[in-house]
Amino acid sequence: MTQSPDDSRTSGLATGFSAQLPAWLQGELTAVSTPRVTPEERMELVNYLADRNWREGNGGPFAAIVVDHVTGEVISVGVNVVLSTGLSSMHAEVTAISLAQVALGSWDLGADPERELELVVNWRPCVMCYGSTMWSGVRHLVVAGSGPELERLSGFDEGPMREDWAAQFEARGISVTEGVGRDDALRVFREYGEADVLVYNARGAGAIALD
Amino acid sequence: MTQSPDDSRTSGLATGFSAQLPAWLQGELTAVSTPRVTPEERMELVNYLADRNWREGNGGPFAAIVVDHVTGEVISVGVNVVLSTGLSSMHAEVTAISLAQVALGSWDLGADPERELELVVNWRPCVMCYGSTMWSGVRHLVVAGSGPELERLSGFDEGPMREDWAAQFEARGISVTEGVGRDDALRVFREYGEADVLVYNARGAGAIALD
Repeated sequence: MTQSPDDSRTSGLATGFSAQLPAWLQGELTAVSTPRVTPEERMELVNYLADRNWREGNGGPFAAIVVDHVTGEVISVGVNVVLSTGLSSMHAEVTAISLAQVALGSWDLGADPERELELVVNWRPCVMCYGSTMWSGVRHLVVAGSGPELERLSGFDEGPMREDWAAQFEARGISVTEGVGRDDALRVFREYGEADVLVYNARGAGAIALD
Repeated sequence: MTQSPDDSRTSGLATGFSAQLPAWLQGELTAVSTPRVTPEERMELVNYLADRNWREGNGGPFAAIVVDHVTGEVISVGVNVVLSTGLSSMHAEVTAISLAQVALGSWDLGADPERELELVVNWRPCVMCYGSTMWSGVRHLVVAGSGPELERLSGFDEGPMREDWAAQFEARGISVTEGVGRDDALRVFREYGEADVLVYNARGAGAIALD
């Protein structure tokens, strides 16, 4: 194929993309970056960010943070920015994982054997973020819950997951903890669902009858 | 929480990330953007890009393109850029889908009912890209194959998929076509596997015994 330095400008094809945290969250990063020692403190932040995110109009009611499993140092914070970026893959987990990898300068968040990193999310990841978490290098996943309540309350389609999803994580050296901050998480989903805002998954939640 | 315009600069947390196509691919975009009418022509391009990508050192032997299902117009091209971006989620499908969404200015590639878009990939997507495809708005998925040959030849862990993965796509209005350019795809994986280069999935392929 031909080589030309002008090709990328004449083809009309996009050559890159980017995602930014919303301005409201960028304005709170110093407060947000305080170390969080207990699982409950970590999930409290995640539930706060998830609730604020949909109300600000950036995307769905989802947030995720990457922390040092032992010290609670915050490595990154992410929210769902599908609407603000125009990119359907920019769920909270992908955003938080990517920002942690920017911060640490590595695609492998498990590269340092002395430091185990933990992803904290306000529900079980959708099938895309399930894989994104698996390939990220985090050693621990903490979620507020994993049942069908999320889809029922919010209207989101979370995709076809296997029954043994947690065992598959464990088999790859990633521990799974459920049930932290569950009531707060459910309240966020309920209020989002009742607000009748846009559910942006392209194919909608009408087709999960196979599951 | 406090609001300060300097927070994002003083917290130490990253506020954004980006991904770019490799320079070699940017230099070929005019040639690459020629419309491709048949499935075989589309996969020929994908297999070429996948083969070149790992040899150039940008990431794994994977490529994906988004095309107009009817006309073959190329909307975007993507390759796996995990190594060149330092971001573990930047698989070929996520890259191609994101670049198509940049080009069309929408997180929903199915927003125009008059125009069905198709994702062409050189094997069944991993579990992350399975979800990314599902949420993208494409109406068609074309893959060179879907069996265990990829993991066996390349050493990659593709993650825990359900047996009914294709039916789950169909239930959401996404058709699945397999077996286009299969021999060429397998040759790419075989040569990659024999070259003994870095397999970068953080947790490796040793733990798929549960599957």
